[in-house]
Amino acid sequence: MERLNPRSVLVTGSNRGLGLELVRQLARKSNPPQWIFATCRDPAGPRAQDLKNLAAEHQQIVIIPLDTCDPSSVKAAAAKVTGHLKGAGLNLLINNAGILKLSTVETETPENMSEVYKTNVIGPMIVSQAFLPLLRKASQESSQKGMGCSKAAIINITSECGSITNLFAWNLNGLISYRCSKSALNMLTKCQSLHLAKDEILCITLHPGWVQTDMGNELGLPPLTIEQSLQGVLHTLAGLSEKDHGTFVNWEGNHLPW
Amino acid sequence: MERLNPRSVLVTGSNRGLGLELVRQLARKSNPPQWIFATCRDPAGPRAQDLKNLAAEHQQIVIIPLDTCDPSSVKAAAAKVTGHLKGAGLNLLINNAGILKLSTVETETPENMSEVYKTNVIGPMIVSQAFLPLLRKASQESSQKGMGCSKAAIINITSECGSITNLFAWNLNGLISYRCSKSALNMLTKCQSLHLAKDEILCITLHPGWVQTDMGNELGLPPLTIEQSLQGVLHTLAGLSEKDHGTFVNWEGNHLPW
Repeated sequence: MERLNPRSVLVTGSNRGLGLELVRQLARKSNPPQWIFATCRDPAGPRAQDLKNLAAEHQQIVIIPLDTCDPSSVKAAAAKVTGHLKGAGLNLLINNAGILKLSTVETETPENMSEVYKTNVIGPMIVSQAFLPLLRKASQESSQKGMGCSKAAIINITSECGSITNLFAWNLNGLISYRCSKSALNMLTKCQSLHLAKDEILCITLHPGWVQTDMGNELGLPPLTIEQSLQGVLHTLAGLSEKDHGTFVNWEGNHLPW
Repeated sequence: MERLNPRSVLVTGSNRGLGLELVRQLARKSNPPQWIFATCRDPAGPRAQDLKNLAAEHQQIVIIPLDTCDPSSVKAAAAKVTGHLKGAGLNLLINNAGILKLSTVETETPENMSEVYKTNVIGPMIVSQAFLPLLRKASQESSQKGMGCSKAAIINITSECGSITNLFAWNLNGLISYRCSKSALNMLTKCQSLHLAKDEILCITLHPGWVQTDMGNELGLPPLTIEQSLQGVLHTLAGLSEKDHGTFVNWEGNHLPW
């Protein structure tokens, strides 16, 4: 079986929910990454306490302040990470930060549309741009053939709610701003995959399942615990290769339709 | 052959390009609509002169000021159109206004992402919301069975550039903000189609081809004249029915993949 052994990983929105558990499971691996950059908007705030407790137990975890909607914050975070890496590249960038607003076709507002797009699409775009030099470096310095998450990869956390074919959970909520943003994020991922193929940087858009997080609970009773989702996600990340480049994959490793 | 004979049509962004020619071809039909609401941001400005000249020749054309990005302007336009219709509904809403910015995965900016999304996605969303009462009225007062553009329909003008499967013209330009916006618009259309099925309001996302407009010319040498595109578009609109509801159709009437 393929193994997931990146030397460095960065996870956005890692102070709670999926992001926090992802950092936890990475840190508890038998062969953890040397650097786990756990980013969140306000590491000094009360909502980052669980992450700070976790980081106190694992020296690999480096907490970095990062507001993915603020270009200057993104730039500053990239500089900090570059400093920590001391000349090494970044293997795995996981754009996990995202928001959701309940709505219908008739009640959705311009304000929510803009805000959700900014966080769910523009954020991942500018974070990917800022960390691209480090991802390229990781790809170049890797001896691994082909593509993979242990070499150089951008994983955009999307949702099957953004599958125009499937419209997951349509019966539960219209989620117009969320669905539109996730379809756009899927397109961004496809564009990244074409642009970065020559650099052998794997680009994937990944649906973690309907999970018992604050976000998932807004829709009803999610079937998956965070642990179940992330066990699947980590197993799936380990197995991803160039055959999956530019595709829409779920937590179980199955390809989803656009 | 099916005929296109809506009693009333509204076209956004109709002062130039595809929108202007669409208004022209509708007005020149042997059985033109009774009302052709041609909207643009600034009817008093120099960029609306061609539309004003056209309207001087055809009494069916009613020019309405409408900035699709401004909710208060959208609301005012809906009130004006309601007044003109004197109790009748609106059969056909064509969300045509759109913008394009050249870019790559590495050069795309947050500012352009926001601006393009606002015009290409949020605009069509709030225009559709504002005109929904008139579309519902048209559907209710129609004796036509099923769905069609002569009864009640929202046509969102998209682009095959927004097909995540096809990525039309990728070799010509990354067009990141544009592609992401059009994928999101396709999702919006799918959501509208599910929400409005019970009202029998047809919802379609339509690619007019790569056309010799100011926008089309930015990418190179488009194969289609505006006239060729719109002859196909009008023929396609005439033939659309419930079998096409919620799908992605091109100017020739062929279904495109998401």
